[in-house]
Amino acid sequence: MYTAPVEDIVFALTAVSGLGEAMRTGESGDLTLDLLDAILTEAGRFASEEMAPLAAVGDRQGATAQNGVVTTPEGWRDLYAAWIDGGWNALTGPADFGGQGLPVALSAAVFEIWNGASMAFALGPMLTVGAVEAIAAHGSDTMKRIYLEKLVSGAWMGTMNLTEPQAGSDLSALTTRAERRDDGSYRIFGTKIYITYGEHDFTDNIVHLVLARLPDAPAGVKGISLFLVPKFLVQEDGSLGPRNDVKCHALEHKLGIHGSPTCTMIYGDGTGETGEAGAIGWVVGEENKGLACMFTMMNNARLHVGTQGVGVAEAAYQKALAYARERRQGRATRLGQGEAAPQGMSPIVEHPDVARTLLTMKALTGAARAITFACGHAIDRAHGEDEAQRTWSDRAHLLTPIAKAFGTDVGVDVASLGIQVHGGMGFIEETGAAQLLRDARIAPIYEGTNGIQAIDLVLRKLPLAGGTAMGSYVTELATVVEAVRGANHPGFGRTAEALTEALADLVAATDFLLAALAGKDSETALAGATPYLRLAGLAAGAVYLAKGALADPAREDRMALARFMAENLLGETAALKSRVTNGAASLAAARIVLA
Amino acid sequence: MYTAPVEDIVFALTAVSGLGEAMRTGESGDLTLDLLDAILTEAGRFASEEMAPLAAVGDRQGATAQNGVVTTPEGWRDLYAAWIDGGWNALTGPADFGGQGLPVALSAAVFEIWNGASMAFALGPMLTVGAVEAIAAHGSDTMKRIYLEKLVSGAWMGTMNLTEPQAGSDLSALTTRAERRDDGSYRIFGTKIYITYGEHDFTDNIVHLVLARLPDAPAGVKGISLFLVPKFLVQEDGSLGPRNDVKCHALEHKLGIHGSPTCTMIYGDGTGETGEAGAIGWVVGEENKGLACMFTMMNNARLHVGTQGVGVAEAAYQKALAYARERRQGRATRLGQGEAAPQGMSPIVEHPDVARTLLTMKALTGAARAITFACGHAIDRAHGEDEAQRTWSDRAHLLTPIAKAFGTDVGVDVASLGIQVHGGMGFIEETGAAQLLRDARIAPIYEGTNGIQAIDLVLRKLPLAGGTAMGSYVTELATVVEAVRGANHPGFGRTAEALTEALADLVAATDFLLAALAGKDSETALAGATPYLRLAGLAAGAVYLAKGALADPAREDRMALARFMAENLLGETAALKSRVTNGAASLAAARIVLA
Repeated sequence: MYTAPVEDIVFALTAVSGLGEAMRTGESGDLTLDLLDAILTEAGRFASEEMAPLAAVGDRQGATAQNGVVTTPEGWRDLYAAWIDGGWNALTGPADFGGQGLPVALSAAVFEIWNGASMAFALGPMLTVGAVEAIAAHGSDTMKRIYLEKLVSGAWMGTMNLTEPQAGSDLSALTTRAERRDDGSYRIFGTKIYITYGEHDFTDNIVHLVLARLPDAPAGVKGISLFLVPKFLVQEDGSLGPRNDVKCHALEHKLGIHGSPTCTMIYGDGTGETGEAGAIGWVVGEENKGLACMFTMMNNARLHVGTQGVGVAEAAYQKALAYARERRQGRATRLGQGEAAPQGMSPIVEHPDVARTLLTMKALTGAARAITFACGHAIDRAHGEDEAQRTWSDRAHLLTPIAKAFGTDVGVDVASLGIQVHGGMGFIEETGAAQLLRDARIAPIYEGTNGIQAIDLVLRKLPLAGGTAMGSYVTELATVVEAVRGANHPGFGRTAEALTEALADLVAATDFLLAALAGKDSETALAGATPYLRLAGLAAGAVYLAKGALADPAREDRMALARFMAENLLGETAALKSRVTNGAASLAAARIVLA
Repeated sequence: MYTAPVEDIVFALTAVSGLGEAMRTGESGDLTLDLLDAILTEAGRFASEEMAPLAAVGDRQGATAQNGVVTTPEGWRDLYAAWIDGGWNALTGPADFGGQGLPVALSAAVFEIWNGASMAFALGPMLTVGAVEAIAAHGSDTMKRIYLEKLVSGAWMGTMNLTEPQAGSDLSALTTRAERRDDGSYRIFGTKIYITYGEHDFTDNIVHLVLARLPDAPAGVKGISLFLVPKFLVQEDGSLGPRNDVKCHALEHKLGIHGSPTCTMIYGDGTGETGEAGAIGWVVGEENKGLACMFTMMNNARLHVGTQGVGVAEAAYQKALAYARERRQGRATRLGQGEAAPQGMSPIVEHPDVARTLLTMKALTGAARAITFACGHAIDRAHGEDEAQRTWSDRAHLLTPIAKAFGTDVGVDVASLGIQVHGGMGFIEETGAAQLLRDARIAPIYEGTNGIQAIDLVLRKLPLAGGTAMGSYVTELATVVEAVRGANHPGFGRTAEALTEALADLVAATDFLLAALAGKDSETALAGATPYLRLAGLAAGAVYLAKGALADPAREDRMALARFMAENLLGETAALKSRVTNGAASLAAARIVLA
């Protein structure tokens, strides 16, 4: 059973992400270490005691739909009630509407914990956070008054309605249509797919944020508007009025996250109670500026999806480690340590190959965690327009696709390794290891596929700050490496050298891509996007592990893990660099294979 | 829907595996190219038309059990009947008992096809092949007379009963007990788990091969015997007699291969019709020599499991490619090619990142396929005791763990990439991409986990032929690389250099491991086992792709794919080598993390 790694998380937040320094310099308001610790400890308790026990039943039963009514798995409705009672939903919302306004870095940390306990459950509240952000940033005062307090408390939940059958990664193709009504509201008509928690029995009302196109809108993404469409219209006095013309047509039958209803939503088929066809909605922000509003939701959502990868990876590691300590097979070879293994069968954790697998899992999880927290902290520091804040903003933009893609790839890789550690038991569903892989597998796909993240990193983020955004980041990471070298601690082994080589690979790949972009050779740049993102994630994550180890050299385990990652996992960066700098020509030549 | 890649398979068999040369020199009997082609074409037809359409229903319904009676999914019983009617089961059995005695390399090829169509279905016949091999090699004449013809034709199926709850990778711990009866037969008592097709409705009788221990047996693996235990005892006249005291207690609820019943089998609980407790069985080979008999089954079974990875990978590639050609999103960037992309949305296959993914899938699949065929061919040439045959035998032993582990890792990796190419559709079960990952995920686990394969490669296979087995293999691979260099074809790009570097990495890692073994430093050798196996698989597979390209330089696509693999995927070998040669110290130091 999942136990929130509160100590590791607090440490990564305070010693690695930058939040600790911000707390010392007063940059993070009145957040104290005690408060941080208290929140994460209590979140860990709630996650382990209340959420985690319901993860398996959620997987087994799944959400079900009948005539547009969606029923969540046994116990989940009560869990959600306990969740809002505990104030967990309000942790991050704006203070004016009942939220605690805690830093995004801390939000990433608690979401990691929820995701470790039950990714399928936590996904609903995660989307509500996105809706709160979009409405708080772009909604009218009336809209805020009516919806925000309910969404912040969790009395109502929010959704994001982007995808249509023909419009996934490419939103320019979307056809959901909005018509103006006389009173400033709109009528929405269309079908949206893959709508997470689009319908459920957790709350009385559901607030849909829907991308649609006005009849006179420009073509492409510049003609998309964002609309707020409640399931039930809200009366003047705040009570719920007639059912809007929106319904859940069906649920998807998915590989994982079964507890989370993934809905096909139909807007405007005339089945509402409003007396007219079309789902009634209100524009969020300005007409035709929907994409910008959506990116407000999307950026933090991408970070939160990254925490899904980390949370599941942590859960997979814990499960595999517990099994490897219990399960005995074979007599472990420990001759290299100059000591004879004891008679009889050894716990499999003592076998070198199993140890390698578990350490790989732990190192990748810690690396991805540090990146998500650093990303969250950059978002926290990015508010405002002065130069320092613009630098933080660039950092946030740079790290978001890495946090999302590297974090979620790690989630899948580590969950799959976790199955392997279990041997035959890993393939048996009752063990729970397989569920983690099934759940984790969606995260590299939604909220922008990891391929889209890589393209975003190369085409939009590398050019930030005149092309220096990654360079500045590497310079900062290099100071950590110098500190490791300066520490000259035998426990670090070859860590400094390995990190130096990895950062050199990152710099070489960055320079290559910037030159390709400058030469308008987007094809070459795009061909290297995915290996480049992985390279950045590995290098940064390894530096962060070392940074943590430096912060407390007495913790030999942290230093040993940082060294393991540097000496065992960083060799990959040279291969990734080579894929970026030498891979495009053979890729282009091999296109005939796919023709 | 899966289409057997007959052309690719025939080419890999004849131009790469060594079978083509053996056919020319008459080393492979009267097998002709026409016959080979006819068999594979017809197998492809059967797979596509008869098996593949039933894969999804097998996954959805799964096998079910009630009171020890197992029902296979709708249509599977008829499919099995068609399978034996078509003579497919008899393709590889000994000619004396109705088999066609075709080469193991060809058997690997047809099993790849069956596995591409339905891994869960093909698994049953695969186990029967193992039973045939064990009985043919070690069984008494009586045993052969009673059972072999039935097993070769497929009228009866065979199973392998090794695992017990406390004895998985470590068979020394098994406790299933055998008692001698007066007539030379035995009574078996115990529980076996994870028994594939341990019970089903395909055939009238099921022939279980069961590892058990005699009361006076030595401890450990030297006290294990192999027994043949039929579900129904066979009368003198060949008709079926009383039900033996063996039953299926329950089926496992698994991540994948749902159509294949995975049984807990109970031997000797007194529920048979023989009038006595204990399942009646006969020893295969000699008492206490069961492990050797089991390895007869196991070696070819390992190769066949490798073909599961290849078959599923091929199916995943085909599905992803078909989707990527149909699905349009975004306008592809092709500036690097000096041509403007057409207006509107492009098929996603034109996006560089998707093309990279698909080419990676295709290259890894082709590489793994070539290794499995080369392994099969080595097994075919290994019969006998002269020096050439001993060399082939060493080669077969060397390649078996690589074929199994590399092949099945590729299966999982490629199936996961296939999901990614599908985007959101990949996570929806109806698409079928997710099933391929769920099915593939068992293959790195069973028949000896891939960790066990790596240990086998390092501890048992590297020392073969006085430690020269891998060296000889690399020397042979290097002649291909020299031919690539000599061809000096521009389509090969940097292929020769990349292959040379990869083989140098393999040599360095091999030398390091041999030195560690010579120094009795098993810990260090074992720490590097898994990266070493991957390194060997990547390097050999890439050379095989180049060998195929050399054989027909007019096929630009094959050359381009070999180049893509060399220039894009082989960079990893340096990292893997480093993990072998420099990774053990940090791994050992990091053990405290797991303590």
